[in-house]
Amino acid sequence: MPDSVEPRPMVLRTFRVRTSNHVGVLARVLAILAEHGASIGDLRTVFMGPLSRVRDIEIGFADAAEIEPAIRAIDATGEAHVLEVRDEVLDLHVGGKLVIRARHPIASEADLRRVYTPGVGEVARRIAAEPELADHYTMRASTVAIVSDGTAILGLGNLGPLAALPILEGKAAILAELVDVSCVPLAAGAVPTSELVQAIATVAHGFGLVLLEDIAAPRCFEVEAGLRAAGISVFHDDQHGTAAVVLAAVIGAAGLAGLDLARCRVGCIGLGAAGTAIARALMDYLGRPVLGADLDPGAIERFRAAGGEPSDLAAIMATCDLVVATTGRPGLIEPAMVRRGQVILALSNPVPEIERDVAMAAGAALATDGRATNNMLAFPGLCRGGLDAGVREFVPAIFRAAAEAIVQSAPPGQLLPPPLDRAVHRRVARAVAGAAIDAGVATREVPPDYMLEGR
Amino acid sequence: MPDSVEPRPMVLRTFRVRTSNHVGVLARVLAILAEHGASIGDLRTVFMGPLSRVRDIEIGFADAAEIEPAIRAIDATGEAHVLEVRDEVLDLHVGGKLVIRARHPIASEADLRRVYTPGVGEVARRIAAEPELADHYTMRASTVAIVSDGTAILGLGNLGPLAALPILEGKAAILAELVDVSCVPLAAGAVPTSELVQAIATVAHGFGLVLLEDIAAPRCFEVEAGLRAAGISVFHDDQHGTAAVVLAAVIGAAGLAGLDLARCRVGCIGLGAAGTAIARALMDYLGRPVLGADLDPGAIERFRAAGGEPSDLAAIMATCDLVVATTGRPGLIEPAMVRRGQVILALSNPVPEIERDVAMAAGAALATDGRATNNMLAFPGLCRGGLDAGVREFVPAIFRAAAEAIVQSAPPGQLLPPPLDRAVHRRVARAVAGAAIDAGVATREVPPDYMLEGR
Repeated sequence: MPDSVEPRPMVLRTFRVRTSNHVGVLARVLAILAEHGASIGDLRTVFMGPLSRVRDIEIGFADAAEIEPAIRAIDATGEAHVLEVRDEVLDLHVGGKLVIRARHPIASEADLRRVYTPGVGEVARRIAAEPELADHYTMRASTVAIVSDGTAILGLGNLGPLAALPILEGKAAILAELVDVSCVPLAAGAVPTSELVQAIATVAHGFGLVLLEDIAAPRCFEVEAGLRAAGISVFHDDQHGTAAVVLAAVIGAAGLAGLDLARCRVGCIGLGAAGTAIARALMDYLGRPVLGADLDPGAIERFRAAGGEPSDLAAIMATCDLVVATTGRPGLIEPAMVRRGQVILALSNPVPEIERDVAMAAGAALATDGRATNNMLAFPGLCRGGLDAGVREFVPAIFRAAAEAIVQSAPPGQLLPPPLDRAVHRRVARAVAGAAIDAGVATREVPPDYMLEGR
Repeated sequence: MPDSVEPRPMVLRTFRVRTSNHVGVLARVLAILAEHGASIGDLRTVFMGPLSRVRDIEIGFADAAEIEPAIRAIDATGEAHVLEVRDEVLDLHVGGKLVIRARHPIASEADLRRVYTPGVGEVARRIAAEPELADHYTMRASTVAIVSDGTAILGLGNLGPLAALPILEGKAAILAELVDVSCVPLAAGAVPTSELVQAIATVAHGFGLVLLEDIAAPRCFEVEAGLRAAGISVFHDDQHGTAAVVLAAVIGAAGLAGLDLARCRVGCIGLGAAGTAIARALMDYLGRPVLGADLDPGAIERFRAAGGEPSDLAAIMATCDLVVATTGRPGLIEPAMVRRGQVILALSNPVPEIERDVAMAAGAALATDGRATNNMLAFPGLCRGGLDAGVREFVPAIFRAAAEAIVQSAPPGQLLPPPLDRAVHRRVARAVAGAAIDAGVATREVPPDYMLEGR
């Protein structure tokens, strides 16, 4: 569960700080940092002397302009001194976060003859004769392309394809680390939507799955539909991955708050790409309409067409037992709007529609924010299970199965499981593959004990 | 230097053979294999008993239809028995030959915050403000896209994009192993040329270099020109990589045969994509026209426009001191056409225009084939040096520098150096970066001791 109210860290730094060995000096340093809007990560002792200690302190600043004043304030204590400011995050990104390597060493001419000509010629001929063999004799069946045009980067807006690259690489690194999936970042330029679809479809023959990322609405819908029409297996993480995690959080929150989802009123505030996908997933799961509000008439029309019941912010807050907000508008939900016993998922990043503690103080039974509903819980298992079952089309049943696997993995009393728990991702992959096979959208079997090992 | 006359192996198998411990049994097995058009690779003893031995024999068959008769013939000796036939080459390709991995472990939530949000947000913002930083904070500057549409796969023709995948993966594996370059295979569908250019250009923002591979002429020229016009750093290995290696072989062969390149007559038989690129590289190096022959009037026109002197097969064979053949027509050059003292590079794969031994017997001073002029000598260093210097455009001086670095790395008395010698690739990379900087097409400096380490 998140800390709340603490400002969202936007800029990470590591301060190397020498403190005199007097009682309370470290506490004073942390207090000064807090006054400058910083949240504290790990502390590591680098040096312990008879008179002083040196520690590395990981700090998240909400505003980079606070870094220099914080340093001056720490130095002004006379008891503590900032020796060095390091940017470990930037350092980590230098040269990129991925590496592509050969699976087999090439140490001899015999290796070469196998990996390349003449050995590879027979493989090419076999695939030409029987194209399905590409899933067996190449990396295709275990490789995802992650595509962005950089039009909707994190909460930052349209920053273009080059700025999308570090995010695509980060997501690819997560896929590699958590579920052993190879993932190719494709940063696409600002071309008309039909050309983008055409470009992706043209170069996608070597990928088992295309993951769309950080593409602005409504373009993201068109790109997804276009690729689907071209027979490409695709999902848009900002919509479908998010919807799966939020559905898991809704199920989990209802359980923790003692809310009966079969009877309660559910409302979605904000019907952008993520909000619409969440509303669809909720309606698919609940089997009935939910309320929805958005200032954009186009979004309302899409929502109505999907079977939703258009409403407005005030009415949803006044009448719904469970509210999901994805508006991107910090503080939109005022404490006075909160209904006693309400469950509120205020998911906008970096700042939610209402802070968790504020919502709880205003009478909510349970409140959470976007940091707690981490996409990372869904997309690794969706990709891995989707690839292994050769999913042709990601249907709603797949995302529902992923959500159920996530919520079933939550430790007792917790809303959701920790995102780095590999067992969660194995369970999601297993659920995804199973749901795909049941729904008739799988092209491959998985063994009965698929992903059960090491549980 | 190649073995010659032995048929080119097209299909590789490993036979596990038990032989009785009588004198000459193994020799008889190898003789039987030879009768079935097989060339022999490594032999490994698996078991040594008092009465028999078991060995794994790596075999290259020119024709897969010979495998079964060869097994029957070995078994019929009564002294030897084929226990098992393994396809180690195919086994090696299962699941693909590449893997994409994270450069840094993701073991803690702190790691996650650095690799992904919120840490990655600052990286994205910096790149958006200063796009050149993408070369510093992403894998862009060390990553190649290798693109094929599968229209000219090895010597096999148009087999389509899926069949190109194992070749692209093999080349990417070589780049990873020999020069630590990450390389993304992009298998492109059968779309019009302008759409292919558009597609590659649209998704190429994350790549420092595009390597074209196995694209048929004349499409390959148009794709290369289109990408170049879009400001993308590109070269076509089948043209330019080949031309660099062949130029190295020509310089080396002239040296070994005592031929003065400044005075001799040079002819190119076959002016397809590779042949034209070779002719251009030769004219660039020699500073004068070479003779050229092709049956296609379009190819002759391109050759004339490039400054070449159109001729024909008979005239070139009758008058040239040095001949390079790239026709794809086995046995095109008859022994009677060979002029005494001629240097002949008959480069078509898998079967050359004239076998080396046949050419030598007919009076050639030196003859070689396509197996000896391995592209692998050029493209790793071209990619690595090109990336490190941020080459904007691959100009002829770069390929000339690569050729000179290759030929200077040949051991005494040898035409070319061995392709797995890492020192060769370091020298080529250094030469490429240096030539790019000298030619004003580099966007980055390299340090003075670039690639000199470990020499």
